[in-house]
Amino acid sequence: MTAEHFVGYAGLQPYQKDDQSTHLQRYSFQPRELDEDEVEVVVSACGICGSDIHQLTNVGGVGWKRATYPIIPGHEFVGRISAVGKAVTNLHIGDRVGVSPVCRSCGTCELCQNARGQYCSKRVTTYNGLYKGFQTFGGYADRVRVQADWAVKIPGNISDEESAPLYTPFKLLDIGSETSIGVVGIGGLGHMALQWGRAKQCHKIVAISSTNAKADEAVKLGATEFISLQEGLPSSSLVDVLFVCGTGPSTSWSELMGLVHVGGKVVVLDIPEQPISIPPSALVHRQISMVGTYVGSNSDIHDMLQLASQTGVRPWIQKVGKSLEEVNQGVLDLIAGKAHYRIVICGEGRV
Amino acid sequence: MTAEHFVGYAGLQPYQKDDQSTHLQRYSFQPRELDEDEVEVVVSACGICGSDIHQLTNVGGVGWKRATYPIIPGHEFVGRISAVGKAVTNLHIGDRVGVSPVCRSCGTCELCQNARGQYCSKRVTTYNGLYKGFQTFGGYADRVRVQADWAVKIPGNISDEESAPLYTPFKLLDIGSETSIGVVGIGGLGHMALQWGRAKQCHKIVAISSTNAKADEAVKLGATEFISLQEGLPSSSLVDVLFVCGTGPSTSWSELMGLVHVGGKVVVLDIPEQPISIPPSALVHRQISMVGTYVGSNSDIHDMLQLASQTGVRPWIQKVGKSLEEVNQGVLDLIAGKAHYRIVICGEGRV
Repeated sequence: MTAEHFVGYAGLQPYQKDDQSTHLQRYSFQPRELDEDEVEVVVSACGICGSDIHQLTNVGGVGWKRATYPIIPGHEFVGRISAVGKAVTNLHIGDRVGVSPVCRSCGTCELCQNARGQYCSKRVTTYNGLYKGFQTFGGYADRVRVQADWAVKIPGNISDEESAPLYTPFKLLDIGSETSIGVVGIGGLGHMALQWGRAKQCHKIVAISSTNAKADEAVKLGATEFISLQEGLPSSSLVDVLFVCGTGPSTSWSELMGLVHVGGKVVVLDIPEQPISIPPSALVHRQISMVGTYVGSNSDIHDMLQLASQTGVRPWIQKVGKSLEEVNQGVLDLIAGKAHYRIVICGEGRV
Repeated sequence: MTAEHFVGYAGLQPYQKDDQSTHLQRYSFQPRELDEDEVEVVVSACGICGSDIHQLTNVGGVGWKRATYPIIPGHEFVGRISAVGKAVTNLHIGDRVGVSPVCRSCGTCELCQNARGQYCSKRVTTYNGLYKGFQTFGGYADRVRVQADWAVKIPGNISDEESAPLYTPFKLLDIGSETSIGVVGIGGLGHMALQWGRAKQCHKIVAISSTNAKADEAVKLGATEFISLQEGLPSSSLVDVLFVCGTGPSTSWSELMGLVHVGGKVVVLDIPEQPISIPPSALVHRQISMVGTYVGSNSDIHDMLQLASQTGVRPWIQKVGKSLEEVNQGVLDLIAGKAHYRIVICGEGRV
């Protein structure tokens, strides 16, 4: 019997958009053995996320500076189960499942027992993680092995390509019709936040974008008001909760805090590459909270998919093919700000 | 009829501890007319707070850089009412009342209507504020005129000197026996936080101090555990909510965030003079919130005083006399870290 091989598209050195030699390369590897509690997923759709760029670039002043090479990105993907570990009872070969940025947790600590396994100190990330001495590789590969608890069945009316991120903070903060929300940055995350706001019937949903170009689409996605940063931010507060889905070197956290009402919350969703600098007075004198939330737990993801299924929340996607060239082009398009709004690699197998 | 004059102790230029010419000076001023909705309070006890130092110093890299001279500090004081405006019905001459950092709000906006007048955009601070073109002067003066809504009656079993700050965040965050708390900095604020923790029956109260010297007293104040920064912070998380009551230039917000459990809160009570720099990853990957709270509303202060009256929460105070020399010495003692734990100016009149 010959050794089994998986194939993926890997970054082998810090990615630079203008240097093709640093782009993704075909990478073949021998997977570690399937664990008793795991399933193997044949990837059929995988989102290209801004965080993949942070990880791939990984150089001073640009990336998050924590990638280990080779790195095969892809932390939001859907596929069909092709193998099942001996101890797995709730999933079967052929089931259609989605996988998020976490692919394993201990299952026994207090956090895991309380549906917050995404914060488990023994969690393993879906890629650029380490498990039993092996690096984890994500959905830019043809197949991925993950703990069965972190493979969530997808409702029938959501297509492979339409996994829907960004639900957890809405649940955490108990956002409903009484809440007014703002969304800064109308991209891969922001266009979902607007839809979740509408699904939760928020009475006011303000989209805040760097340009006027997205005004019409923001309204289609659920915004009740649109503000272009080109015209400057208003000087008075607007909303109860502000989702910060996009930041840049010029982001003024002080100005963003000014957009939330007294007692309001600023939710940090885009993880900036620089420290967040907060003027203490802005935090204190208006009783503002800065809230961090990571990815959802497996039960959050389950709830999210049910609600998306019922309410029609879907990412707006732009499909790219599964070839190395098309995937590299997808990465370049995302860096260039051309994603509209989520670029998704479609098709089984990697060539 | 001769014009009425009040007397206070004022800073007239940026305070420098080693330059006596910059210390507080006797300052006589003609008050503006008593408004219909105001009471006049003859100050009998006034705390010297660390924030007074921030305001008095007011120079690059040290103070908050926002004082207007002359400045007469004093934002926590108790006294008896000596005059009552025509529209005031609930207070009378001779009543014993306390005044906090806010001395006026509009009373009609949504925040005022919901007992959050301390955040009213038209609020006036008790000193270094501006009302009808006049600067406001605090309790280092012999008399102060404040809006009656912001003068709160003091329960009979709390002495003039024992006003008790720092209750609001306990109410805001709904802290009770299920909550574990930590207190960083065992000084004027921190020694109250420990007592509020005990009054609220928190099952775990960790005092964190720069030295071992306060270990015994921290336990008397309510701490169930004591950590000295000299011996280093533990590497694992300790508590649900961390009250940051003292910071310095070397404060590591990242380390402090590490002390709270996943999903926990860091409450910023000491307003540092430098921006707070937060590593985004620490905020996001452990679902931490940074929470600012300002002073209490008048109803918070009322609730606080009732609870203090019932549970025995009292500041540990160090009395100083009412003379200019004694007050200046009190300021120097606070700067030198000798306050044990709250220095209070005692006695009516200023000489």
